[in-house]
Amino acid sequence: MRNVLGAVCVSCGAEHEAGDDTYTCEKCGGVLEIVYDYQYIKTRITREKLAANKDHSLWRYRDFLPIAAEAKLSPLRVGWSPLYRADKLGEALGLKNLYIKDDGLNPTSSLKDRASAVAVVRAVHAGKDTVACSSTGNAASSLAGNAAAGGLRSFIFVPDRAPAGKLIQLLIFGAIVVRVKGDYGDAFRLSAQAIEKYGWYNRNAAINPYLSEGKKTVSFEIAEQLDFKVPDYLAVSVGDGCTIAGIWKGFKDLYAIGLIDRLPRLISVQAEGCCPINRALANGLPLAPMEEHTMADSIAVGVPRNGEKAIRAIRESGGIAVNVSDEEIMEAMRLLGSLAGVFGEPAGAAATAGLKKAVGQGLTPGDALAVSVVTGNGLKDTAGAQRAAGAALHIPPDLGLLIGEFRRLGIRP
Amino acid sequence: MRNVLGAVCVSCGAEHEAGDDTYTCEKCGGVLEIVYDYQYIKTRITREKLAANKDHSLWRYRDFLPIAAEAKLSPLRVGWSPLYRADKLGEALGLKNLYIKDDGLNPTSSLKDRASAVAVVRAVHAGKDTVACSSTGNAASSLAGNAAAGGLRSFIFVPDRAPAGKLIQLLIFGAIVVRVKGDYGDAFRLSAQAIEKYGWYNRNAAINPYLSEGKKTVSFEIAEQLDFKVPDYLAVSVGDGCTIAGIWKGFKDLYAIGLIDRLPRLISVQAEGCCPINRALANGLPLAPMEEHTMADSIAVGVPRNGEKAIRAIRESGGIAVNVSDEEIMEAMRLLGSLAGVFGEPAGAAATAGLKKAVGQGLTPGDALAVSVVTGNGLKDTAGAQRAAGAALHIPPDLGLLIGEFRRLGIRP
Repeated sequence: MRNVLGAVCVSCGAEHEAGDDTYTCEKCGGVLEIVYDYQYIKTRITREKLAANKDHSLWRYRDFLPIAAEAKLSPLRVGWSPLYRADKLGEALGLKNLYIKDDGLNPTSSLKDRASAVAVVRAVHAGKDTVACSSTGNAASSLAGNAAAGGLRSFIFVPDRAPAGKLIQLLIFGAIVVRVKGDYGDAFRLSAQAIEKYGWYNRNAAINPYLSEGKKTVSFEIAEQLDFKVPDYLAVSVGDGCTIAGIWKGFKDLYAIGLIDRLPRLISVQAEGCCPINRALANGLPLAPMEEHTMADSIAVGVPRNGEKAIRAIRESGGIAVNVSDEEIMEAMRLLGSLAGVFGEPAGAAATAGLKKAVGQGLTPGDALAVSVVTGNGLKDTAGAQRAAGAALHIPPDLGLLIGEFRRLGIRP
Repeated sequence: MRNVLGAVCVSCGAEHEAGDDTYTCEKCGGVLEIVYDYQYIKTRITREKLAANKDHSLWRYRDFLPIAAEAKLSPLRVGWSPLYRADKLGEALGLKNLYIKDDGLNPTSSLKDRASAVAVVRAVHAGKDTVACSSTGNAASSLAGNAAAGGLRSFIFVPDRAPAGKLIQLLIFGAIVVRVKGDYGDAFRLSAQAIEKYGWYNRNAAINPYLSEGKKTVSFEIAEQLDFKVPDYLAVSVGDGCTIAGIWKGFKDLYAIGLIDRLPRLISVQAEGCCPINRALANGLPLAPMEEHTMADSIAVGVPRNGEKAIRAIRESGGIAVNVSDEEIMEAMRLLGSLAGVFGEPAGAAATAGLKKAVGQGLTPGDALAVSVVTGNGLKDTAGAQRAAGAALHIPPDLGLLIGEFRRLGIRP
């Protein structure tokens, strides 16, 4: 990879080569970050070249990705999700310049496709025929889908409590799903043992440093879709921390090669019932585990593996940490749906809830250019949406009764 | 609309103006079809102009759509869904050149967004602030989502039996949902009365001739994505008939202005348990109602309102009618998911099941260029997907037990 210099440990700074078997730091076990040759990339990516590029997927940014020049790209159309200007929603939030990035429109309906696409390309290039991870959520379904399209097998390890509904997408994608009689830790450990034994490609975000590189493409798109105007604030929901770290890396990459001239401030949104990263940001103490009490299960991560990376990113950006309640998340789901036509899953709508709160608390000015990322499709979690949705009218087929019901409910037809 | 000449009745041939209030035939009540000025459109659309067009949504074809030049386009990014070459799936189906068009990646996750986007643009242009329809399915959710994004209110009438899960997306989009104590006919009639009384914009595919015009954009995309090579066979699942009629119109439009030099043969796929259109095609008798027994609820239409239009389209194309069982649909869901990474709802996968059957019966040769349209996302109907999906392994967290389970099940890790 001509564009990659190596990998550096986020915790101790130790330098590593960026190879097929590069996972966590050999010295301290910390999470690694990929380091690029920006002088070289500058010669490859310019605004003009991007404008002429007809590849409308994350691969339009391949010069910024840790994949070999000769690597076979995976076939699903990941990325280049729409960025909507949302004036009516902005009004409701108190923002004059609000944009919504709908990443729920990725092939398996979440932002995680960006990471899994990179994983699949790297796995194929490394000569692997099988990929594996432990997850019940979007990481798993995106891996299963991208693997299937890329001609790889996938093994997914899930904890006992994984709801049957979450497994359906995996099974349809042909993944071999191992439901482990135990909790997430048990599933993670068994997946690690099996990956070690069988030599499968490891797509656990806890240790694979290439995944957040895929995620950073969402930032490239936001910048390009805004014609390289940089958002003042960018709201993201935060669970493990890998996504917000990736998003920050994306803007720093663009800044490093001079495609943008400043950086956004990140708004890190967590659920009140599970906010270890925001808590550490607020109290300045090291990350400590938390229980997981929130409807937004995609960001219910009590022990975030990329927490340090995330905290560093949020701090560097001069960012804001906001926690939101389940009620605020449900309100944001309704606002996104009814005012912008975007159906986000609870974790996906949480960023919008946090942005609303930041504006309400005077942390984000009303005339700021703000972007909220919807990280997953609401169809992924209809039980959550059901709690957020209102009720239908229920009447016999009679126009008079309908008119009466409108009047009773104050609906002006 | 400089590009539109008028509307003609599919049944009696009576000519009409194409106005805001043009719905069914004033003479016989038949369904209308929009007629274009191809000489004019020829001056507007060329391969070169399309290649230079940076709008990657259905609006790139606005010169082919019944919307005024000054009309405000609706904001959701509808259309330009991916067309995947699917070699592994093709192998399983016995096809050397198979492509899958994944229309489940539209904003509300179905092809119906194409029709609803056109409806919303027309409604706004006609000065309406409210749109309405009767539907429990994709037509309703696409209308609700596109209306919300376009700043319109929506009223959706659903029959009593509509499952709660189907209403969630509507309610999140802020639609006012009227659940009518009765069947679909009751909901349709009450919606018609209310639309008449309140002057709402009518998005019932049974009578609005502009909707299939939106749907035809899927054909434009298929042609353009294949670099104007025309598929030999195009498989579509058929319920009301509006979609397959729109798809045929799209290819005829392209042929009329010389962008393609021949037309595909349509494969009309219906469920064995509800196939009034295919039955009429087979026996040459007029359409007769059928009961609705299939898991593919999006195409379970016992009384298709656009049946005549569909039958004419299929016949004109030299098409094939194939009925598939629920088992064949579920098999197609698994094949699409595991070999192409595409998760289709039952009705969306039905086309692929039909294509497989057509190849198996020798109706479609193995070297044909074939396209199968996936009309909706599998997340729309996880209950259906659950029936199709296999089972997970279920073991304690122990590597030895995992190895034993692999051996027992014949899984080579």
